[in-house]
Amino acid sequence: ASSESPSPEAPAADRKQPESDTLVVTSEDGITTIRLNRPTKKNALTNQMYHDIMAALQAASKDESVITVLTGSGDYYCSGNDLTNFASVPPGGLEEMARRGAVLLRDFVNCFIDFPKPLVAVVNGPAVGISVTVLGLFDVVYATDRATFHTPFSHLGQSPEGCSSYTFPKIMGSSKAAEMLIFGKKLTAQEACAQGLVTEVFPDGTFQKEVWARLKAYSKLPPNTMRISKQIIRNRERETLHTVNAEECRVLRERWQSDECMNAIASFLSRKAKL
Amino acid sequence: ASSESPSPEAPAADRKQPESDTLVVTSEDGITTIRLNRPTKKNALTNQMYHDIMAALQAASKDESVITVLTGSGDYYCSGNDLTNFASVPPGGLEEMARRGAVLLRDFVNCFIDFPKPLVAVVNGPAVGISVTVLGLFDVVYATDRATFHTPFSHLGQSPEGCSSYTFPKIMGSSKAAEMLIFGKKLTAQEACAQGLVTEVFPDGTFQKEVWARLKAYSKLPPNTMRISKQIIRNRERETLHTVNAEECRVLRERWQSDECMNAIASFLSRKAKL
Amino acid sequence: ASSESPSPEAPAADRKQPESDTLVVTSEDGITTIRLNRPTKKNALTNQMYHDIMAALQAASKDESVITVLTGSGDYYCSGNDLTNFASVPPGGLEEMARRGAVLLRDFVNCFIDFPKPLVAVVNGPAVGISVTVLGLFDVVYATDRATFHTPFSHLGQSPEGCSSYTFPKIMGSSKAAEMLIFGKKLTAQEACAQGLVTEVFPDGTFQKEVWARLKAYSKLPPNTMRISKQIIRNRERETLHTVNAEECRVLRERWQSDECMNAIASFLSRKAKL
Repeated sequence: ASSESPSPEAPAADRKQPESDTLVVTSEDGITTIRLNRPTKKNALTNQMYHDIMAALQAASKDESVITVLTGSGDYYCSGNDLTNFASVPPGGLEEMARRGAVLLRDFVNCFIDFPKPLVAVVNGPAVGISVTVLGLFDVVYATDRATFHTPFSHLGQSPEGCSSYTFPKIMGSSKAAEMLIFGKKLTAQEACAQGLVTEVFPDGTFQKEVWARLKAYSKLPPNTMRISKQIIRNRERETLHTVNAEECRVLRERWQSDECMNAIASFLSRKAKL
Repeated sequence: ASSESPSPEAPAADRKQPESDTLVVTSEDGITTIRLNRPTKKNALTNQMYHDIMAALQAASKDESVITVLTGSGDYYCSGNDLTNFASVPPGGLEEMARRGAVLLRDFVNCFIDFPKPLVAVVNGPAVGISVTVLGLFDVVYATDRATFHTPFSHLGQSPEGCSSYTFPKIMGSSKAAEMLIFGKKLTAQEACAQGLVTEVFPDGTFQKEVWARLKAYSKLPPNTMRISKQIIRNRERETLHTVNAEECRVLRERWQSDECMNAIASFLSRKAKL
Repeated sequence: ASSESPSPEAPAADRKQPESDTLVVTSEDGITTIRLNRPTKKNALTNQMYHDIMAALQAASKDESVITVLTGSGDYYCSGNDLTNFASVPPGGLEEMARRGAVLLRDFVNCFIDFPKPLVAVVNGPAVGISVTVLGLFDVVYATDRATFHTPFSHLGQSPEGCSSYTFPKIMGSSKAAEMLIFGKKLTAQEACAQGLVTEVFPDGTFQKEVWARLKAYSKLPPNTMRISKQIIRNRERETLHTVNAEECRVLRERWQSDECMNAIASFLSRKAKL
């Protein structure tokens, strides 16, 4: 996977190819699949995994595949940002950690905004935080009926990211979006589907079989046409989405340095340590 | 409630505190509750009540509470604008009445656009007109299954307000919004919920108990975080909402002076007088 | 129907009145009804029918009617663009055919964007392609439970039109819209209603009776008020819709000259010829 020669204009992060076992990328039947593979940690995202996902998306955007899929190994889809990312403070202190975190998050979300081919989430179990918010940037979201969708930002002293402050009200209406983004309401798969965040829900027993059969059929459609249809939809909002992403990251950078956030994360890590 | 000293920069309307019995404001458990209290008139809004609600929202935006709630006393949530507001024509005639009405409406709706904390509607019964349209500016809307949602603008020769010409198509899609706003279709609570205007519907028997338990739990979340999350959602649309509100009020001011409107209101008041 | 004298500023297409049997226009009870009448071809749209519909909309916008309805004769609502429109290549070749097609489509969709009165679709059966996409520009869409909604653009090497790249994500959320517009998922009437594309679904047995009774009631509401309410909703998006329409037609013009599209249409016409 590291055979692709780096292009001179690509930023550093783009040149990396996923090498760790925590991300598994495969390509078959015109479909590139990016699989979160840290099941013992419910596929929580380490800083390394953010970089690996960006590299995998960058590679998938240029490979021969027609459709790109993001999914998870094991019972969870993704439990969100690994809060131990906050545990090791760099020499520059909290301020520097917040600065770096905001840059990483912004780059990560930009990869989803700019991804040029049909992008499908195969949500194989519960989804939390950033793995939920970026769903608004996917083209299609299939979910098992075991999946749940949870964005407990307020509980952690944090604010919405992944462009969810823009995409969620647009997708589900302001009154459903706010209960989720401000009050941290957890949705079932059926609720998320009724509100438009999820395209379709499948019984867990037949989820993988039904979803992959459908995706294989879709992958036989004319690839240029599908890419162009996606672009005509996305181009209209691309600039807005980049602005939203930048603004959300700016606010989060401040939040990460706030007492409310530090207290909430310290409390979370302390509860976790006692388990 | 009148103990707060007026700040020099606040406009006149902001300094008033509700003094009438038709509005009851209480604060408890981090929640400020503004209760329409004219149950014998189905909580129809007099001109005085518009001013009192604005003053109450202004006070709540500055008090120690975390969440602000609007609700109604008795069987109705609110039957909308009291049409007897149109009965006493001022010295300037119909034109002056329309001008004043448009200024009052614009100021009133602006208070909802700019309210800085999570704002929750506890819809305890049927809602009509302006009490329905401004729901698109609330963060969360809980409704009893007895509630209905009705905007009979066309029947009264009037046009949409409360930013509903913008928020309703965005929340429920153009084809649901137009039947409501142009043809005056009345929605049940379940329909309003399926279409995203209402966050959740509760059985009438347990409505108050369930809703207040949930709000008390939410009021314990970090207050700054929730305010900031609301702002990041609202800021993106604030300017648009003010423009929409101004335009809707401009059109309504003309409508109020039209034959279609005068005939419809005269007919309504005459039917009412015969009851 | 040709008695209306042409106004000097109207473009040529506006002056034509439908003369063919493939479109039947009637006016009664304040409702002008435009009926696609090519049931043996599932009401597929010939180039002539596009012109006739534009002329009928132009006439309806100026007549005495309050509400305008589009519906179909027979079992189908409309099977979309008649692909035999692509069979006769003009002297200028494929490039000229694509240019003309894009101009016609753009003019056609603009008529829906700019239509000034309440516009209602009475979807009496399956709907395909352009007849589905322009539904996002109607005010109200009533459908029989026999109706389906299908936009197989990718299957035909084509891209979204009728402003659907903008209206569909707004109405149904991005993840439902993309499965329909990119992957060509066919919706049932109930699904289209749940996702907001359709206002209400009726049992086929009582469809005509229920829908026309409701429309007759609506047609008695104050006509100026309804037109103004429609305009206040539409004006906010009019410029955006024209931009979207122009961009979609520009992309489609390129698509029509692509190998993917030519192969797909040739394959379709060849399969059809063998039946």
